Amino acid sequence: MNNFTLYNPTKIIFGSGTIKDIVKEISKESKILIIYGGGSVKRNGVLDEVKAALQGYDIDEFAGIEPNPTYETLMQCVEKVRNQKIDFLLAVGGGSVIDGTKFIAAAVNYAGEPWDIVKSYGRGVRQAIPFGTVLTLPASGSEMNSGAVITRLATKTKLPFMNPLLFPKFSVLDPTKTYTLPASQIGNGVVDTFVHITEQYLTYPVSGKIQDRFAEGLLLTLIEEGPKALTDPQNYDVRANLMWCATLGLNGLISAGVPQDWATHMVGHELTALHGLDHARTLAVLLPAMLKIRKDDKKQKLLQYAERVWGISQGDEDARVDKAIDKTRAFFESMQVKTRLCDYGITAEAIPTVVEQLKAHGMVKLGEKFNVTPEMVEKILGLCLSV
Amino acid sequence: MNNFTLYNPTKIIFGSGTIKDIVKEISKESKILIIYGGGSVKRNGVLDEVKAALQGYDIDEFAGIEPNPTYETLMQCVEKVRNQKIDFLLAVGGGSVIDGTKFIAAAVNYAGEPWDIVKSYGRGVRQAIPFGTVLTLPASGSEMNSGAVITRLATKTKLPFMNPLLFPKFSVLDPTKTYTLPASQIGNGVVDTFVHITEQYLTYPVSGKIQDRFAEGLLLTLIEEGPKALTDPQNYDVRANLMWCATLGLNGLISAGVPQDWATHMVGHELTALHGLDHARTLAVLLPAMLKIRKDDKKQKLLQYAERVWGISQGDEDARVDKAIDKTRAFFESMQVKTRLCDYGITAEAIPTVVEQLKAHGMVKLGEKFNVTPEMVEKILGLCLSV
Repeated sequence: MNNFTLYNPTKIIFGSGTIKDIVKEISKESKILIIYGGGSVKRNGVLDEVKAALQGYDIDEFAGIEPNPTYETLMQCVEKVRNQKIDFLLAVGGGSVIDGTKFIAAAVNYAGEPWDIVKSYGRGVRQAIPFGTVLTLPASGSEMNSGAVITRLATKTKLPFMNPLLFPKFSVLDPTKTYTLPASQIGNGVVDTFVHITEQYLTYPVSGKIQDRFAEGLLLTLIEEGPKALTDPQNYDVRANLMWCATLGLNGLISAGVPQDWATHMVGHELTALHGLDHARTLAVLLPAMLKIRKDDKKQKLLQYAERVWGISQGDEDARVDKAIDKTRAFFESMQVKTRLCDYGITAEAIPTVVEQLKAHGMVKLGEKFNVTPEMVEKILGLCLSV
Repeated sequence: MNNFTLYNPTKIIFGSGTIKDIVKEISKESKILIIYGGGSVKRNGVLDEVKAALQGYDIDEFAGIEPNPTYETLMQCVEKVRNQKIDFLLAVGGGSVIDGTKFIAAAVNYAGEPWDIVKSYGRGVRQAIPFGTVLTLPASGSEMNSGAVITRLATKTKLPFMNPLLFPKFSVLDPTKTYTLPASQIGNGVVDTFVHITEQYLTYPVSGKIQDRFAEGLLLTLIEEGPKALTDPQNYDVRANLMWCATLGLNGLISAGVPQDWATHMVGHELTALHGLDHARTLAVLLPAMLKIRKDDKKQKLLQYAERVWGISQGDEDARVDKAIDKTRAFFESMQVKTRLCDYGITAEAIPTVVEQLKAHGMVKLGEKFNVTPEMVEKILGLCLSV
């Protein structure tokens, strides 16, 4: 097992009817800005419930954080926070709203050009306004970690950053608030969570036995519960398990002490930035091809994955690995998430630009063995085009 | 899944050679008291390593915290902390030293008689001196939770307490520091961890699918790695996995959202207070009998445990449950921990006093269904006497 540091001070408040509990977590003297997205939290009543809980507080709102939150929009919010001397942010929404709120929290008192926060991958952050979250879309894990991903429209750049100052003070996870999500967002959320886990699990063994068991436990739960969320949308326990999976899939627990990959995510970010493809869809397209092309490097973990997650223990090693990859793709498709670039109208001509953007962003030695080069990415993308 | 709150701000610093990193966690202006036990940390060099790391700090020492730390000893330390205006405590040792340090941290500025901290199960704590830990004996989980168990010699009382102010600021877990532990402490540590997990897992199902998978993952790891620690004492990965298991077994993660039992622990505490039996040995004796007598209440989880942890899927339900209980007992014995009261020279005459003490401490409706009465405990203890 590798050495590690694990620190996660976010308080999770989980369960039906828990939005009202946010008042125990925010000082009465706070000047609060509620930050949200395109308005679904207005339509489904979550925003009203948050405001009802905060009666008597000094609150204001900022709406319009988009999926893949943009620097351009977020800087408008930073101005508002500065002008109105806001001292607590409350993100109400999914990963994009929470990621955007993390950037705002870090940018408000940042000395210098705030884009440098992203360019330094978060290292330059010295202080942040405290913030909490009310999660409505389980997927990103942002509600219990200190990372975020921001897009700059002007340059079609989508980059991650993180800093220990950017853990939410609290996150409310009420599974009933996910009942109204459209099937596409359920599918995306399950795929996103699944690939977060494989990025931390499908690498090479370092005798991280607990980390492996935990990752496998989360994957098995996604496989068991994910399809039920599509057929039985108001099943509380199904939604609760999926919501908790998403959080535990990316809160630092299963990565502590083991190697990590993240090549699928880094290439996926370029596809989103260039083609507007949903984040989870880029992952569903890329993961099977990533595993095929890199299967020698990942062989031991892929065999373990085949056996423990998919129950595949018959056949020669290559056949077992291939079968596990096929099962993975079929699972994504069963969640109604397509797994080929052609499904999204992206053709071979698009590949060189993706590879160029990766190079421009310094992403030339990706993966747990730092051997995913632009040339290999080109091959992987080729395999993503069609069946 | 039940509603829950999960909050755990302890920073874990895990791995070989990490003791030196404590300097990053403690302010240079701190006046530090290093607290330890019977001297094993002197003999194995851990104390010297801690002191070397803290060169230039204002440090003092308090030795002699005993296994099952006593109020009487701890109050001597409280006096020292008050007199010398200590403002940071560093526990170096196992669960007893850490538990004792939690009591000291809470008692120093406590308004009133400090025993009331224990009598109120920790609810009365309003402030605590900050403290960190350097763990040398993986078992109790105290290094990453806010609970402790203290014994009052005068009344032969052993009681738990907890408070969110009593999380360690940091805990250093260096698996190499466990190489010199005697086999008896390895066995005890594995059994203690195992039963911490079953107290949170072997109850009744609430669709806590992830919690179940995580608990099973920890149990499987203990079963795989525990015996290796006895035959191959300097195997780093074995020690690392056991150490991380002990911490994750009782840090709030696997209990979040599910029922908890703890009857085995509460009865075990009385056996330790009255007869001086090692904590883990009380658990090894009690758990098989607890599961036998309460198997109807726990049937669904016991069947799941039989299948997922022990691979038992053949035979009728009763036979599967019995086989799983037998396997559990055999595992404890394989860790060189005896599982009958007679192995420890305790006979039937001892039972009435144990039951009386439980009543005296208000422990009359134990377990996840609050149906473990003194009468049932009497029956359970009867079953513990011999084969």
